[in-house]
Amino acid sequence: MTEIAILGYGTVGSGVAEVIGTNAELIAARGCALHVKYILDLRDFPGDPYGERVVHDFTCILDDPEIKVICETMGGVGAAYQFSKQALEKGISVCTSNKELVELHGAELSRIAKENHCSYLFEASVGGGIPLIRTICQGLTAEKIEKIYGILNGTTNYILTKMDREGADFDAVLKEAQANGYAEKDPTADIEAHDPCRKIAILASLVTGKKVDWKNIRCEGITKLEKADFAYAWALDAQIKLVAMSEFTEKGCYACVSPRLLPADSPLLCAQDVFNAVLIHSNMLDDSLYYGRGAGKLATASAVVGDAIEAAANPGRTMGGSWSEEAALLGDIDEYEQGYFVRLSGAADARREEVQKVFGNGYTVEAKGVPGEFGYVVQKMREGAFLEKIAAMEGVLGYLRYDAPAEK
Amino acid sequence: MTEIAILGYGTVGSGVAEVIGTNAELIAARGCALHVKYILDLRDFPGDPYGERVVHDFTCILDDPEIKVICETMGGVGAAYQFSKQALEKGISVCTSNKELVELHGAELSRIAKENHCSYLFEASVGGGIPLIRTICQGLTAEKIEKIYGILNGTTNYILTKMDREGADFDAVLKEAQANGYAEKDPTADIEAHDPCRKIAILASLVTGKKVDWKNIRCEGITKLEKADFAYAWALDAQIKLVAMSEFTEKGCYACVSPRLLPADSPLLCAQDVFNAVLIHSNMLDDSLYYGRGAGKLATASAVVGDAIEAAANPGRTMGGSWSEEAALLGDIDEYEQGYFVRLSGAADARREEVQKVFGNGYTVEAKGVPGEFGYVVQKMREGAFLEKIAAMEGVLGYLRYDAPAEK
Repeated sequence: MTEIAILGYGTVGSGVAEVIGTNAELIAARGCALHVKYILDLRDFPGDPYGERVVHDFTCILDDPEIKVICETMGGVGAAYQFSKQALEKGISVCTSNKELVELHGAELSRIAKENHCSYLFEASVGGGIPLIRTICQGLTAEKIEKIYGILNGTTNYILTKMDREGADFDAVLKEAQANGYAEKDPTADIEAHDPCRKIAILASLVTGKKVDWKNIRCEGITKLEKADFAYAWALDAQIKLVAMSEFTEKGCYACVSPRLLPADSPLLCAQDVFNAVLIHSNMLDDSLYYGRGAGKLATASAVVGDAIEAAANPGRTMGGSWSEEAALLGDIDEYEQGYFVRLSGAADARREEVQKVFGNGYTVEAKGVPGEFGYVVQKMREGAFLEKIAAMEGVLGYLRYDAPAEK
Repeated sequence: MTEIAILGYGTVGSGVAEVIGTNAELIAARGCALHVKYILDLRDFPGDPYGERVVHDFTCILDDPEIKVICETMGGVGAAYQFSKQALEKGISVCTSNKELVELHGAELSRIAKENHCSYLFEASVGGGIPLIRTICQGLTAEKIEKIYGILNGTTNYILTKMDREGADFDAVLKEAQANGYAEKDPTADIEAHDPCRKIAILASLVTGKKVDWKNIRCEGITKLEKADFAYAWALDAQIKLVAMSEFTEKGCYACVSPRLLPADSPLLCAQDVFNAVLIHSNMLDDSLYYGRGAGKLATASAVVGDAIEAAANPGRTMGGSWSEEAALLGDIDEYEQGYFVRLSGAADARREEVQKVFGNGYTVEAKGVPGEFGYVVQKMREGAFLEKIAAMEGVLGYLRYDAPAEK
């Protein structure tokens, strides 16, 4: 029996208690019985089955030699950072769902864990309950990972799925998502794509072994998407998804988070509504994909508990992935080559020659219900060149990254 | 540096050498450098870069104290079994892609590994390069796995994808698949579904912790499928896939391998052509899915090498999943409830009343290009009852298992 403490009794923290409670027998049968001894929270929870285990002072957890594993589900990078650091320094393993903290201080905390023969584990920080970090660190060990393409944010995927299926407006869908709890009151981190940007930064750090700072990643949210964009997506037999991508080359790691048109046969499109999916391209295995609930109380808590089981089963050892504090070499994303889709005002026939002169070989697309404009599919070119061209062009109404199927 | 030996220098065995060679630097950087010291094969390979490491006598491998890990890529359950057993008895870890052997003797070999403080690992035996066994044993440790639905055979998925897309006949597509190497000369194990049946038996054994014998699983191949079945699939906005399923209940494990209609929104349908996908439903995480190349030289070899890295990194420890030699409790599949689709001769209008009387509430379907018959979607019922009913009915042309979307 391993004694653990939960820091923060919010959604994920209470989920951790619930997962451990519900699956207690099964977890014990796997040889790693867990017992929640303390729950740290500023609030009290009278009547809650775990209410009597609530403490308000972290030192009582830190000073209890029985505690071997801490589940940090507080969020934030202040107290969560201090508590995690203090625990690891005492050789107590820490399992977390806190992506901000992992992205910001993961390298340091992993190093402290190693120095103190314990583990800093963060499966829940990316892709919720999908065992993604374990796959990268333990499953694909014989592989050179070359590219990651991920739908890593459930809120925006819900919004985009609704916009696609119902032809609805962004603002209306966002309001609905907020009303039914799929989006936060302040949805900035989701709709401006900061959340998936932090997540791809964590995955890219794991792959490169060095720190990829999310602030250095080109990051575009979904707020500028309009009904018209979806009309073109239908016309192209494609779907618009918020994709966090990272490609690993000798020139460095190229990363970008933005809405993207995905062809109908993309396996990533299995991820609809709040589901997440991550496609990993590696040199021997080719494409593999991992799909599941990327957020939500129990899915996220399950990943935290999975980490707690691993830490409990391996006392004195350092498990999981990590990266150094050194900055990873990032490629200049403006040098990155990919295809695009651009929306232009006017008539396709009248502007085709002009547009082809600018973008080279491509093709026009027209969509139903979008008069007075047309779309153009741009073949692979450097991102910097593409952005320069559309800045200099008249009547550009919008653009999306789009690697069109080869046969078109 | 860990010295390893490869048993069998066929497709997967030579792939193992290739993966280790190509990704040597990267594997070494992960702290588990591997070196191929011997390759056991009856043949010689003059000119092959590994040709000089070929030996014909297993004892020279077994008696070399430097060998810590063996990759068994011979296949079969004769010599492969003897060699694996002898190696494990000496404390040498064995990593294998041999699903027949794992299904038949996995429990015993895992036990011998445990007794001798080494590992018997078989990630490559199910789902090729998809880290599926690792996900079940290490990723979803906080989860109670309730159901597995898998497309676990690349050959039949290739055939079914072609039949679906091109409206082609089974025999023609099989011949084409044989001509371009996607199907074996003797395709029985694939098209009669013995291969995916062994694979679901392995997964079910891992989940239950006891031996599930593939011979006790109801197993139907794809040889009876006709163009007409696909016409109905189109009409129902569904696809026909060979699905290996297993549901884990208190009454036991219900397992069945058969062609099945999957609704268009099933995430399993990301698996087209030779790709595999496995959907795991568990009690906290809900659905998660794992997709990739389920076969092929490098994908399979990558999984074997991933296992070799794990064994090399954990000397003296027993890694991976296992089950006991005791037989798992199997539920009577005739008691299992699910939906069906049945093809009937005659006109829908003329027979609707009769058919509804037999099957209860359901609905008729007509498909293009299939005159003189119609389809009927049967709501959930016990398999035994369904099979009895169709045996007693006139003009039954075929049936498929089909959990129709609820909204219909």
